[in-house]
Amino acid sequence: MLNAVGYAAHAADKPLEPFKFERRELDDQDVQIEILYCGVCHSDLHLARNEWGGSMFPIVPGHEIVGRVTKVGSQTSKYQVGDTVGVGCMVDSCRHCANCDEGYEQYCDNGFVATYNSEEKQTGGVTYGGYATNIVVHEDFVLKVSDKLDLAAVAPLLCAGITSYSPLRHWGVKKGHKVGIVGLGGLGHMGVKLAKAMGAEVVLFTTSANKVEDARRLGADAVVISKNEDEMKAQRNSFDFILNTVAAKHDLDAYMSLLRRDGSMTLVGLPAEPHPSPQVFNLIAKRRSLAGSLIGGIAETQEMLDFCAEHNITSDIELIDMDYINDAYERMLQSDVKYRFVIDIASLKT
Amino acid sequence: MLNAVGYAAHAADKPLEPFKFERRELDDQDVQIEILYCGVCHSDLHLARNEWGGSMFPIVPGHEIVGRVTKVGSQTSKYQVGDTVGVGCMVDSCRHCANCDEGYEQYCDNGFVATYNSEEKQTGGVTYGGYATNIVVHEDFVLKVSDKLDLAAVAPLLCAGITSYSPLRHWGVKKGHKVGIVGLGGLGHMGVKLAKAMGAEVVLFTTSANKVEDARRLGADAVVISKNEDEMKAQRNSFDFILNTVAAKHDLDAYMSLLRRDGSMTLVGLPAEPHPSPQVFNLIAKRRSLAGSLIGGIAETQEMLDFCAEHNITSDIELIDMDYINDAYERMLQSDVKYRFVIDIASLKT
Repeated sequence: MLNAVGYAAHAADKPLEPFKFERRELDDQDVQIEILYCGVCHSDLHLARNEWGGSMFPIVPGHEIVGRVTKVGSQTSKYQVGDTVGVGCMVDSCRHCANCDEGYEQYCDNGFVATYNSEEKQTGGVTYGGYATNIVVHEDFVLKVSDKLDLAAVAPLLCAGITSYSPLRHWGVKKGHKVGIVGLGGLGHMGVKLAKAMGAEVVLFTTSANKVEDARRLGADAVVISKNEDEMKAQRNSFDFILNTVAAKHDLDAYMSLLRRDGSMTLVGLPAEPHPSPQVFNLIAKRRSLAGSLIGGIAETQEMLDFCAEHNITSDIELIDMDYINDAYERMLQSDVKYRFVIDIASLKT
Repeated sequence: MLNAVGYAAHAADKPLEPFKFERRELDDQDVQIEILYCGVCHSDLHLARNEWGGSMFPIVPGHEIVGRVTKVGSQTSKYQVGDTVGVGCMVDSCRHCANCDEGYEQYCDNGFVATYNSEEKQTGGVTYGGYATNIVVHEDFVLKVSDKLDLAAVAPLLCAGITSYSPLRHWGVKKGHKVGIVGLGGLGHMGVKLAKAMGAEVVLFTTSANKVEDARRLGADAVVISKNEDEMKAQRNSFDFILNTVAAKHDLDAYMSLLRRDGSMTLVGLPAEPHPSPQVFNLIAKRRSLAGSLIGGIAETQEMLDFCAEHNITSDIELIDMDYINDAYERMLQSDVKYRFVIDIASLKT
C-alpha cells in the first residue's frame, strides 16, 4: 500500500481538514502519480457538503489533477516514470458497454468510476480524489500533459476544459459560426477561449457589467448583458450554437430565441431547482434543440489537452495552498475567483 | 374575380356555415384549382374557435388540399390544366430571407403566408383555406400529386404527412434505427407508416390499450402503453429518435429517458399549457436533445408526396360531407376519428 496525505471532509457540515489514508497496491496496468496541482471544481463543494446526496464520508475531493509518474505497473505500456500526466473526472468505467466501446466512457451504461466518491472496483473501497499527495490510476484513464504549458493552469482543463470542449466539438463549432457562451465562470471562461481557438465568432452572455472587459481580454468578440432586453433582442435568430454553463435556475427561452434555424443550446450545468419549462414554440418555430453534455471521453480529453498545447490555452487561475481550501469554497460561493482555484499540492507536503 | 363557395366560422363561438366569397384574379404565375378533397386538421378547430388568439373572422379553414388545375396564369411553367395537385399549410413566404433561400419556407424569417387566416400579399385581404370549391395559389406553392393513390386519402399528407416526414428525415431515420412515435392520431399514424417505410424499427406509445391492434396493423413493430411503468422502463436508453405528436401537456422525461446516447426527441405539437420542465439530468446524462419541428418546406413536401406514391402510403381517413364538419369537430375533441376526417368537396357543390 502507498501512504497518502490529503484533505477530507468528514461530514457535510464539517470543514475539510488533513487526512491520512492509503492508496491501493499498484496493479499490472496501474500508474502511480505524484500530484503537483489539483483544480477546485464547484462539484467538489457540492459533494463535500452532500448537496446532491450520496456523498460517502470521509470524502477527498479533486478531479482536475496534474502530476508526475513515479512508478508504473509491470504491464503498463503508455507511461514511464517521469512523465507529466493528468487525471480528470473518471478513473474507470465498465469498458464493455456500447458507449465505452465507442470511447464515450462518460456515458457508460453501467456508470463510470468517478475520481472520488465512487466505489473502487479493485478494492471495493471508495475512491479518493486529487486533494492529496498521490494517486494510483489505471493507465487507460491517465492523460498525457505537455510540459510546454504552465502545469498549474493546465489542471482545470481536466474538468472545466473538457466539459466546454466536448460540446463545442460535438456540435461542430468552426470558423463562420456564431457561438454564445452563457456565464463567465470556470467553464464559461474556458468556453470563450476554446470557441475562439476553433475559429468561431464568440459572444459572451453575463449578468455582470463588470465582467465585460475581462471577457474581451479572454477572446470574446462581443459581450451581452443578459438583463438588458434590447441587447438580447438584437441577437435574435443569429446563433449557431450556445454553450450554457450556468447551473442556477434561469429562463432558457431568453437564449433559445437567439438561435437560428437548426441551432442548439447545450446545458452543462445541473441546476438544484428545475429551470422554468422552455417554450415549445421556441423549439418548433426554428427547429431548435435543447441538449445537455457531460464532461468528455478519455480519447477526447487527450485531444483537448493536445489542442490546448497547440493553441497555448490554459485556465486563468488563482494558485492556493491546501489549507486555504475552506476559504476558497466560501469565495467560490460568491463567484469570487478568476476563474479557477488550483491547489499547489507542494503545500500539503511541508 | 372567381366566385367560391365554402364553409366559414363567423365568430369563435359560432358553428361553421355556408359562406360565399371571391378568390383573387389569376396572376401571371398563379394556378386556379378546383378542390376535390380537404383534410380536417386539429389546427382548423383551434383557429375556428380562436383558441390560439389572432383568428380573423370570417375564417375558412383547411390546409390539406387536393384538387385539379382548371386554369393557369400566362407565365406559369410548372402546371397545366388537368393536373392533379396539392396545397398544404403555406401559399407564400418572403422568398428572400436565408431560410426561404435554402428551401425552408416554413421557417421564413418574415413569416410565411398561411393557407388561411393570413394576410394575402396580392390583395391585402385575408387568405381563405380549403373548405371551399376552389383556390388560387402561386405555382411555387403548389405540389404535384400522383394519380396512383386514393386522392381523398392523400389530402392529409399535406399537413399531417409532412409534419411527420420532415423531422424523420432531418434526424436521419433509416434502417437499423429504433424510432418511437408518441400518440396515435392524425400525425402519429402517419409517423408510424413513414418511419416504417424508411426502414426503422417502430415502437408506438399510446395511453389507450384499445389502439394496440390498430398500431400493429399500421406497421408498428411494438406498442407500449405509456401508463405502464414497467413497459416504459424496459425501453430505456434504446431509441435513436422519438417523434412526439402529443399536443396535450405531459411528462417529457418519461420519453427522454428512453433515448440512447445522442438521441433526440422532437415535438410537433404545441401544448396550450406548458409541459412540466424537462430534467436537465436526462439531457446531460446521455447528451440527449429535445427539439421541435414545423411542417416542412415546399421542396420537401414534394419529396414526401413522391415518397408516399412510391411506397403506396396514404392516410387512414373517414370521408365526410361538408355539412358534417361541426359534428366532426366534436368527434375530433373526443379523438373519435381513425385517423383523419377528409371533406368530400363535391358535397359542397350540390
